[in-house]
Amino acid sequence: MPTLHDNADSGNCYKVRLAMAQLGRPCTRIEYDTNHGATRAPAFLAKNPNGRVPVLELDDGTCLAESNAILWFLAEDTDLLPTGRLERARVLQWMFFEQYSHEPYIAVVRHWIKHNVLDAAREAQLPQRCAAGYAALDVMEQHLSTQPFFVAGRYSIADIALYAYTHVAGDGGFELARYPAIRAWLDRVRAQPGHVAMHAA
Amino acid sequence: MPTLHDNADSGNCYKVRLAMAQLGRPCTRIEYDTNHGATRAPAFLAKNPNGRVPVLELDDGTCLAESNAILWFLAEDTDLLPTGRLERARVLQWMFFEQYSHEPYIAVVRHWIKHNVLDAAREAQLPQRCAAGYAALDVMEQHLSTQPFFVAGRYSIADIALYAYTHVAGDGGFELARYPAIRAWLDRVRAQPGHVAMHAA
Repeated sequence: MPTLHDNADSGNCYKVRLAMAQLGRPCTRIEYDTNHGATRAPAFLAKNPNGRVPVLELDDGTCLAESNAILWFLAEDTDLLPTGRLERARVLQWMFFEQYSHEPYIAVVRHWIKHNVLDAAREAQLPQRCAAGYAALDVMEQHLSTQPFFVAGRYSIADIALYAYTHVAGDGGFELARYPAIRAWLDRVRAQPGHVAMHAA
Repeated sequence: MPTLHDNADSGNCYKVRLAMAQLGRPCTRIEYDTNHGATRAPAFLAKNPNGRVPVLELDDGTCLAESNAILWFLAEDTDLLPTGRLERARVLQWMFFEQYSHEPYIAVVRHWIKHNVLDAAREAQLPQRCAAGYAALDVMEQHLSTQPFFVAGRYSIADIALYAYTHVAGDGGFELARYPAIRAWLDRVRAQPGHVAMHAA
C-alpha cells in the first residue's frame, strides 16, 4: 500500500486524499507538522528535496512530489481524467492556473490568517495577494457561469485541484457570497460519489 | 497553421517557441507588449481570461493557455515526452516545481531588474525572492549532479520548462557560476537538435 506524506490542513495534501478515496485506493498516512519544520528535516528531504508535502511514496520506495503531478499519476486511465488530447491539456491548463494564479494568493492568505502568522512583511503584501486571489475567483466564476465543471462538462482532477483551496477560501477572508457559479460548482463537487471532507469528522 | 500569442522576452513564451521548433511545427507569431497592458485588453481576454501569454490558438480558434500545458499538448506522442506512467508524472512534477518554486522567484526578479520596474514594495520582497530562487537552483543542482536531464535520462519538456528562465537567471543577478551541474546541463540542452535561442539573432 502506498504511503502519503501528509498534512491535515493542507489543501494540496487534501487533493490527493480526495482523489484516492474516489478511486478506491487506500494509503497509509504520515502526518507532518509543517508549521514547525518537519518537512525540512533530512529524512524528509531525502523523499522530496524541495521540502514540501504531499509526497506519495510507492511500495518500491519511489517518491513522487507536487500535488497536481500526483493527481495526474493516480488519474491516468480512470474516469477522473478525460482521454482527448486537447481535453487533457485543458485539465493541465487549469491545474497550472491553480498553482500559479490561485494557490499563492488564496491558500497563502488563508494560511497566514488561520494560523495567525501575519507579521509586518506579510501584512504589507496582503492587499496585493487578496486582489490577486479575487482575480483568480473572477476567472473561475466566468468559466463556471457556462460550464458545470472545469473541463469537458464532467468532474475531473481539474475540479479536485481547484476545489481544495476554493472551498476554504473563507478562512482567509475571501467572500464567496459574491460568486454564485462557484458556489453551485462547490455543491456539485461535494455531491460526487465517494467525496470526503478535508477534515474528516 | 496555429497562432502563438507571444512575447519575445518571456521565458514562458520561449518554452513554446523552442518546443515547436524542435518538433518541426511552424506557427504564426503575434507579439504583445506585456509591460503596457496588451494582454489585459478585451480582445485578448476573450482568448485567455487570465490575461497572460503564451496562448496557442489552433486553426479552429480553440485557445490553450499556460505554457506548461501547451508544452504537454505539443509533446504527447513525441520524443519530448516519455511514455511510462511514472515518468510522465515525473515530468509534471518538475513542471509544477518550475511554476511554483522557480518562476515566481527567478523570472519575477529578472523581470523587475531587467525592465527596471523595482519600486519600494518590490524592493522589500527582493531578499526573500532571491533566497527562494537560490533554493530552487539548489534543488536543481542536487538533481543534476547525478542525472544528465530531469527525467528518465533524456531530454524532455521538463528540461525545456526549466531551461527557459534558468539560462537567463543572470539577468536577475543570480550567480550561476556556483552551480557546475546546472551549467553542464544548460550546455547539454543547447546542444539538442533544433535548438533555437530565446532572442533569435
